[in-house]
Parts: sequence; C-alpha cells; structure tokens
Amino acid sequence: MDKSGRKYFTFAEPPGQIILENGSLLGPVTIAYETYGQLAADKSNVILIEHAFSGDSHVACHAEDEDEASRPGWWDNMVGPEKGIDTNIYFVVCANILGGCMGTTGPTSLNPATGKPYGLDFPVVTIADMVHVQKKLLDFLGIKQVLSVIGGSVGGMQVLQWCVSYPEMVRSAVPLATTMRHSALAIAFNEVARQAIMADPHWNGGDYYGKAMPEMGLAVARMIAHITYLSDESMRRKFGRNLQDKSDFSFNFDVDFQVESYLRYQGSKFVRRFDANSFLYITKAADYFDLEASDGTSINTLNDSQTRFLVVSFTSDWLYPTYQSKELVKALKKNGLDVSFCEIEADCGHDAFLLPNCRLDSLIAGFLKGVAEND
Amino acid sequence: MDKSGRKYFTFAEPPGQIILENGSLLGPVTIAYETYGQLAADKSNVILIEHAFSGDSHVACHAEDEDEASRPGWWDNMVGPEKGIDTNIYFVVCANILGGCMGTTGPTSLNPATGKPYGLDFPVVTIADMVHVQKKLLDFLGIKQVLSVIGGSVGGMQVLQWCVSYPEMVRSAVPLATTMRHSALAIAFNEVARQAIMADPHWNGGDYYGKAMPEMGLAVARMIAHITYLSDESMRRKFGRNLQDKSDFSFNFDVDFQVESYLRYQGSKFVRRFDANSFLYITKAADYFDLEASDGTSINTLNDSQTRFLVVSFTSDWLYPTYQSKELVKALKKNGLDVSFCEIEADCGHDAFLLPNCRLDSLIAGFLKGVAEND
Repeated sequence: MDKSGRKYFTFAEPPGQIILENGSLLGPVTIAYETYGQLAADKSNVILIEHAFSGDSHVACHAEDEDEASRPGWWDNMVGPEKGIDTNIYFVVCANILGGCMGTTGPTSLNPATGKPYGLDFPVVTIADMVHVQKKLLDFLGIKQVLSVIGGSVGGMQVLQWCVSYPEMVRSAVPLATTMRHSALAIAFNEVARQAIMADPHWNGGDYYGKAMPEMGLAVARMIAHITYLSDESMRRKFGRNLQDKSDFSFNFDVDFQVESYLRYQGSKFVRRFDANSFLYITKAADYFDLEASDGTSINTLNDSQTRFLVVSFTSDWLYPTYQSKELVKALKKNGLDVSFCEIEADCGHDAFLLPNCRLDSLIAGFLKGVAEND
Repeated sequence: MDKSGRKYFTFAEPPGQIILENGSLLGPVTIAYETYGQLAADKSNVILIEHAFSGDSHVACHAEDEDEASRPGWWDNMVGPEKGIDTNIYFVVCANILGGCMGTTGPTSLNPATGKPYGLDFPVVTIADMVHVQKKLLDFLGIKQVLSVIGGSVGGMQVLQWCVSYPEMVRSAVPLATTMRHSALAIAFNEVARQAIMADPHWNGGDYYGKAMPEMGLAVARMIAHITYLSDESMRRKFGRNLQDKSDFSFNFDVDFQVESYLRYQGSKFVRRFDANSFLYITKAADYFDLEASDGTSINTLNDSQTRFLVVSFTSDWLYPTYQSKELVKALKKNGLDVSFCEIEADCGHDAFLLPNCRLDSLIAGFLKGVAEND
C-alpha cells in the first residue's frame, strides 16, 4: 500500500500475458486498487465501483486518513460511513482502469520488451479488457460475486460490460449517466479531442516520455471534453457573461470572460495529472463500446441473467441523454430483466452523477438495501 | 470586378482611417462585395444579406455565370430568380465582413504602417465595426434605406446591429438562428477553438504569413465549431456508428468511424480557404456582441424604430437555441416593435438556416412581399 491508500496487484498468467479482445497479448498487468470498509465473513457485501474517464481508484478518503493533507476522493459525497454507499455496511473496491495512468498498466508503463514506456506500442484495449483485468483482481481477493457494480459515464459502460461478461458474478448493477453505445456526437467530440493531442508536435507519435510533453494539445482536449460534461443551464448560472477581473473587454486574445478563465484552468490543471496517450486509449475504448453490436457481446446475451438493475439518467445530460438510458432499459426489459429506472432532474449536465444529490444518495442506498435483503 | 463577380470598394476618410469601437483607428478599408439583380430606379428594392462566420460575399451564383465552373454560392437555394429572395424583384448586396479573409480588410491585409500583413496588429473589431464599414458601402452605392437586412448566425448579429446602429436605414430585418448575446456555452466553444489555434507552434503569435501555417490548430478549431453546427439527430441519421471502409475496428488511432473521417475532411478543407487569425477575430467579435448590455448599444434604444422584424429559430439548434430567439422577440415587443416569430421544425441543428427548406423560403418571400407592399 502506498501513502494514498492505493494497493497493487500484479498478475502474470502463463505465459505471463492475457489475451486482449483484439487478439494481442499483454502482460504482466498491474492493477492499482483501493478498498473501503470491512469484507463480511461470507463476502456478501462487496460493491465494485467503476471510475469514469479521468478518475482513479481513490473514490473516497480513507477512514484512517483524517488529517487535512489527505487527498479528496472523486466520490466523497457518495461513499463513506452512513453515506449513499455506506462503508459501515459495504466493502467497496475500486480499481484504476487498464490503459489509464494512475497505477494500473497503461501506455506510461514500462514495456517489458523494450524496458521503455509503451507509448503507442500499448495495445488498443476495450471496455471488455478493462473488466477482464478487474475480474482477475476479484479472483485474487477471493470474491466470487459482488452485491453491486456501480459507476457513471465510462464507469457505467464497465458496469454494463460486467453484466455481460460475468453475469453470474453480479447480483445487481447501477449504470449512471451512461449509454450502451456512443452516438456519432459523442464519437465526434472524442475524435476532435484526440486530434488536438495528436496535432501537438510534442506528442511525437506518442513517444514523449522523458521529453517535452504535449501539454497544449492535452489541455485543449480536456477543455473540449469538459464542455460536454457541463450544460447550457449550469454554465449560464455559474458564469453567464461575467468578465474576469475587468470592467471592460480586453480587445485582445487574453481572457475576457470567466468561463474562458475556468476552461484554461481546467486544461492546465489536467495536464499535471493525466497522460495524453491514456486520453487517446480510454476515449477509443469508449467509442468502440457497443452493447447493441451483433456479435457475442450484445445485451441480448443477458436473457438468463439474474442481475437486478437500477438505471439512472439526468435531465440536462446531453452527452448521454436520457433517451439513451431509456433504450438501455427497453433492451434489458425485453430480455426479461428486473430493471428500475429513474431520470433525475438536474441542471448541471453530465457531471450530475458526481455531484452531491440527496435523491441519488437515497435511490442508491435504497436499491442496495433491497438487493442485500433479497438474499 | 474579379472573375468571381466580386467587386471592391476602398474608402479612406480623412485622415484616411475610421474610428473603431475600441477607440483605435483603421484605414484604408477595402470592402469586397457582390450584387445580384437590378437596383430599382427609386432604390426601394435593396436587400442586404449578412454572411455567417465562414461565409463571404458570394451568396449565390451570378446569372451571367452559368457555366459549370462557376463557384457555388453559400445560399444558392435561397437567393436567385424566383427563389425565396427573388433576384428578379430585389437588388441583393452582400459584403465580406471586416476582419475576414475573403477580400475585405482583415488580419491578412497589408498594414500600411509596415508594408506587411497585419497579423495580430489588426485591431480587435466588433459586430458594430463590421456594420459601420457596410454603412460606408451603402453610402458609396447611394442607398439610403434597405427593404430588408437578412442573415443567420453571426450574420444575424449584424442584422440586429444594423437595426440598432442605423434604424432609419432598415425597413425590415430577418435575424435567423441567432442571438442577442452569446451564452457561456457558445463563448466556451469559441474559446477552446481559439486555444487550439494558438496552441499550434506555427501560429507564432499570429505572425505566420509567408511561413508554415497553423494548419493543425485551425483544423481542430474548425472541427470543434463544425460539431456545434450539427445536431445529435442529424449526426445519428447521417453517420450513426457506421465504419469507414472497414468491416471492423482498426485498433489504432486512424479513422474508424465515418463521422471521424467527415470531421477530418471538414478540418482539412477549411484550412485551404480560411485564415487562422480571421478565425480568432470573428469569434471574438461574436463573443463581445451583446444587445442586452447596459450601454448605448442596447436593444432598448429601438423604441422609436419603425423596422419590422421576422425572427426565425430552428428546433434542433443548440448553439443558439429557440429560447434565445424568444428572448429577442420579447425584448423587441417590449419596445413596441412589429415582430413576427417562427420556430421551424428541423433536425439538422444550427446549420438549418443554410439548408434548403421550403418553409423558410416561403416565410421570407411572404415577409418581404408584405414589407414591400406596405409602402
């Protein structure tokens, strides 16, 4: 365990590699993960949380980290003692995703074949590959079934993939603000963000480790993505046309409006903590994800599953709008599954699933209680 | 007149310059413009068309240019003999905007002080400045009043600015798919696009003429902007998740989906015809535009105006959504003006105003007829 509470598990199956969805081999694979709460003797209280695009395993602060220096978790409002996902009751596991840059193997990791970071030699991984390595982690922890797998956005895709890949391991699933497949609009935004990274000469075909980083391109990519997480309403409320530190326009190309300053700040903050190649790999995995595809990974393979679902969308989410959650609900019901659906009124866009929301807290808490009691 | 039908008017008032809204001086100013149809003896049939962001004076083909090689106009479906804006009846004038790169003075023009292109020495101009130089053109043409001023998007902002700056010259106005002021969301997209240009090392502080051009940055900027002109629905219909020339994913960062190929094509096509600095100047002018500001340019100065308005919005336009047109209508009505408003059902997003649409044709034709007959 490192100081942040992060633990590591490395597996290297014979011959030391796993087979990825695209047929290539990868290994050894290290998984960075964190746990919260106590595992019940019968291991019946496990909740697997899937982080979204730029998240990591640090879903919340740890009980033992009560000093001021402890790093906030990305879902502190939801996960903790007596919260929506109550760590007095449940044993929470959250792992950083394959292809990411927060401890789990990804393009920044050393390629054993060369002794250098993978860069673009890292294989293009899929959401199914991400779930595949998480399965290895649960095997390592001796967990045969989870009470629930919960996550939003790209995390919600992993939730759905768990239900398809290992239905017998998933008693219930809570996909939040997510989709069965990216729309052309979502692919378009991801592609433009990737182009912004690849347009930066420092990107250098993905080979920039130890050299100047493609910071400008990554910042632009983040700004594009960040806009899609907000909403017209929330931006109007938060920024409107307010000027930054000025009573009049600059009449040059510096920051005039607060929203410009905010976006530049988001861009520059992101480049200090995230890897440009990981941005490429994770967005590609999200674009490829398709539970309506006609191959064996379709949602229609779920017709024998006992998994219970709570599907949640948010009114102002225009990245994965409610109609996409409704399509998911329809597909699940068509397969005879037990599905609850809730569209939550929220004006803060796609990010709504991450923000404090009493309704979401009680919805998830109630759903989990129902699943636990329905043993 | 050059081969495209474009004419030029250059003015240099004593002392050879005009005063811009920011207080700086600019001159001489050349205006590239085109005309269609015949000016009536009493000059009562003038329609001034305002082009949008990346348009130019070539609103339509000219009657005399019927060979196949003639360049299409950006509004051929609307402007021509027996079309919505009937050039058998009306005399149409369209000028390229100040700060643009299609013949009117802008950052690519030679700075008389240095003999080199202005680059970032070009002053930051506003929508009011654009309209100011168009007024000089109408003066030059001896036109004291126009039957109508018509335009969409940034062109619609110029339409509204005409009504505020020179109300006595405007008998009627047709602002299409536009707004009185950019929302934080619209500013955000413009800012990220500007950042993409300025992140390109070839941009070089705007000093790139005669050197390598910031093509990558400009292409990314165009892709960002282009997404905002479309809609979720139209992209789903046009591209969905269709793959480009392939039966399966590439598992690399080449083009997989048709929508990616389309965007890359739009980006690369744009850099061949547009100037990166003009992108910065025009988006800044659009961001600054604010008819609800508390200074003298407010929409509330219109209370004595006789201008008649036809305001049109489109259901799937999320860049300037219908609620913004309704705010405009409300402000105009509050000032006692004669306003018609129509929201047209269209699933193709902001670009709807440019696309063939019988309803828009007949709406504009009928409105113009009413204004002309109501002499």
